[in-house]
Amino acid sequence: MTNKLLAEFFGTFWLVLGGCGSAVLAAGVADVGIGWLGVALAFGLTVMTMAFAVGHISGGHFNPAVTLGLVIAGRHEGRELIPYWIAQVIGAIAAAAVLYVIVSGAPGFAGVGGFATNGYGEASPQGYSMMSALVIEIVLTAMFLVIILGATSAGAPAGFAPIAIGLGLTLIHLISIPVTNTSVNPARSTGVALFAEGPALAQLWLFWVAPLIGGAVGAVIWKLIGSDD
Amino acid sequence: MTNKLLAEFFGTFWLVLGGCGSAVLAAGVADVGIGWLGVALAFGLTVMTMAFAVGHISGGHFNPAVTLGLVIAGRHEGRELIPYWIAQVIGAIAAAAVLYVIVSGAPGFAGVGGFATNGYGEASPQGYSMMSALVIEIVLTAMFLVIILGATSAGAPAGFAPIAIGLGLTLIHLISIPVTNTSVNPARSTGVALFAEGPALAQLWLFWVAPLIGGAVGAVIWKLIGSDD
Amino acid sequence: MTNKLLAEFFGTFWLVLGGCGSAVLAAGVADVGIGWLGVALAFGLTVMTMAFAVGHISGGHFNPAVTLGLVIAGRHEGRELIPYWIAQVIGAIAAAAVLYVIVSGAPGFAGVGGFATNGYGEASPQGYSMMSALVIEIVLTAMFLVIILGATSAGAPAGFAPIAIGLGLTLIHLISIPVTNTSVNPARSTGVALFAEGPALAQLWLFWVAPLIGGAVGAVIWKLIGSDD
Amino acid sequence: MTNKLLAEFFGTFWLVLGGCGSAVLAAGVADVGIGWLGVALAFGLTVMTMAFAVGHISGGHFNPAVTLGLVIAGRHEGRELIPYWIAQVIGAIAAAAVLYVIVSGAPGFAGVGGFATNGYGEASPQGYSMMSALVIEIVLTAMFLVIILGATSAGAPAGFAPIAIGLGLTLIHLISIPVTNTSVNPARSTGVALFAEGPALAQLWLFWVAPLIGGAVGAVIWKLIGSDD
Repeated sequence: MTNKLLAEFFGTFWLVLGGCGSAVLAAGVADVGIGWLGVALAFGLTVMTMAFAVGHISGGHFNPAVTLGLVIAGRHEGRELIPYWIAQVIGAIAAAAVLYVIVSGAPGFAGVGGFATNGYGEASPQGYSMMSALVIEIVLTAMFLVIILGATSAGAPAGFAPIAIGLGLTLIHLISIPVTNTSVNPARSTGVALFAEGPALAQLWLFWVAPLIGGAVGAVIWKLIGSDD
Repeated sequence: MTNKLLAEFFGTFWLVLGGCGSAVLAAGVADVGIGWLGVALAFGLTVMTMAFAVGHISGGHFNPAVTLGLVIAGRHEGRELIPYWIAQVIGAIAAAAVLYVIVSGAPGFAGVGGFATNGYGEASPQGYSMMSALVIEIVLTAMFLVIILGATSAGAPAGFAPIAIGLGLTLIHLISIPVTNTSVNPARSTGVALFAEGPALAQLWLFWVAPLIGGAVGAVIWKLIGSDD
Repeated sequence: MTNKLLAEFFGTFWLVLGGCGSAVLAAGVADVGIGWLGVALAFGLTVMTMAFAVGHISGGHFNPAVTLGLVIAGRHEGRELIPYWIAQVIGAIAAAAVLYVIVSGAPGFAGVGGFATNGYGEASPQGYSMMSALVIEIVLTAMFLVIILGATSAGAPAGFAPIAIGLGLTLIHLISIPVTNTSVNPARSTGVALFAEGPALAQLWLFWVAPLIGGAVGAVIWKLIGSDD
Repeated sequence: MTNKLLAEFFGTFWLVLGGCGSAVLAAGVADVGIGWLGVALAFGLTVMTMAFAVGHISGGHFNPAVTLGLVIAGRHEGRELIPYWIAQVIGAIAAAAVLYVIVSGAPGFAGVGGFATNGYGEASPQGYSMMSALVIEIVLTAMFLVIILGATSAGAPAGFAPIAIGLGLTLIHLISIPVTNTSVNPARSTGVALFAEGPALAQLWLFWVAPLIGGAVGAVIWKLIGSDD
């Protein structure tokens, strides 16, 4: 199982370094900054690239909610759930640490601030309520699992799943960055929360609870849609 | 047929939640907002992702004009037309309802306003006339059907159709958001019109008539081009 | 040959309607406009979508310089060169006419202005010289042919050519819109020049000469690189 | 070997002309400029398009750090390392020369300025330190090699590697343009440095050292992850 766990470690490392890194370093720069569109693309491309690279080794989850949904849908072995979660969270923390080192070399560095963490209420990028955050994280994670389970099902065209899944994550960010800064991934939320200033750690519970519920709901929805498969 | 209708329900749900959701939540935010380019990408990715996920179950229409065009072209059974339309419209309404709940959690929420509806004249994003709206919706829906029928024809490379079709919808939005906010899909127009303020319901007829005409025209064009297939 | 010519007509129609249409309608709108990035994406997606749809019928050229390069490289029959050129130019003109009708429905319409035409000197978007225009149009068209010939060669992965070619055209626009508004396609230049105000018709010669030279050069370069194929 | 070296020459030529060209010509134009997001896309598309076109001839490296990593991983013959490096560097210089000619036709041309070179400290786009530059260039080149080695491994879906690798380079630029203007490619850094004003030549050592270290590290990481392959 070592190879699988290494694949999940590096995949989640890449997701957080690329997604949160582009948000922290490049999103808000005046005139030429990449904005939320660039951040959405970056998150999606982390998953697309590593799913092509190591998907055939570990399945390419890089996300505790995805692993949970795949286990519930009967696509992944339950005994690997906890080891996968550990590898994913450690990968996310390692990426946040590397990002911290890079950011600390900025001129006049005085702290990482929000550090691309997820939040609701006053910590939501546009001030959305806890209820909005719960709804959107559950619904988007559920649909993410529907895409994953459908695009990797026997009836779907072979080989294209990393494109569908990666750009599905881009789409999810295009919708929900204003509301929660987009989690749908407890490991991603945890990695940066450990280094950030502000209420990210105090709000971290929501970004475990809602994506995990959503992952389970998505597995159930897929079983309904794809029951003939 | 239940699986097919569930697939069409969730696919159209995703199209409206992702496309209209990104427009309502993320397009117009200052500095880092995703703009019309981000909205165009979001609409296209909803179709690409769900076409990969459930296209092998229902065909992946998510759009009454597409179902009509496919029936006319002899690619889909006519007796499924009305059930598909119902599933698509209900999916669009459900998405608009979920989006309404999320938006109502915005700070100082005082109504959804235009809610990403389609319109012409004073309700067109840039004030284009009803005639411009009719022409562009008919022409773009017709070309959308040509892309769909061509990319799923026997001579086209297998497996790539969701990319061609999804990014074709992105392209359609890049052209026509300024004119009508882009429909080419009566279900999408209907879902948000039921919740919006303004003239959307009064103008909804055009976004049924023009896309359905366009869908039929596209089927005829394809029969001309692809008659050797 | 009728099917091939219809395919080239509608493909070039789509290229001009989508590429020039997005430029005229959506590029320069304040705050949410799609900018040159959106226009570059639109041009590329017109070719990608129609190459998936009708590439197996006509080859999917949609561009006189591409047809010339393919004939020189021995990939297309020389006797089809002139019929293809005619179908392409008529398709481009038809698209410009449809776009004119749409644009004329804008509030306070008082003429189409530059209408997304190509130009150099004072007609270049950023004022580049005729020499810069010649160099960039020749070099980019040559590289476009290298991509086309390489991606459709026997050694390349099957089915992916529309992605390589379409996004290659997007890339070409990302580089050269500031210099000439990007032609690399005499039909595209001709279609809008017939309707535009300003010096577009007087400068049209360059956007036939440079792309055709570039197309020929690209065919020769490919023969050097791919001589083992 | 001539065909391989021609392929690497033209591929690296395209990478520098397209990536650095879009940065110099189109990134910073007011209102409609393509910004860093457009530049990131351009760099990635140069590699994607030419990897589809000539990847089956030379492997499609276009980058000395990639060739080194592939040699270390046992995927490429060591005796081709130096010829590949020479072809890549000459291709990059040729592209910078062509770009110089084009740029010199701008109105009021008075020098190329930074010319899209890479830098750290005062020459970093956002002023990041030499240490930040070293860390980010090593880490991103290492992950680039992991993507390349994984996406071209026997277990990965066939044909998709140019998408994974090209868009992987886009992702790398989305993260690191603010820090170093993104190299991960010594040839790209060298080509423009020879023509640029400012400290680019004096800082060029870092953009050989860091990417080459990163390429080697990436090869080792892949051997760990993919050892079962």
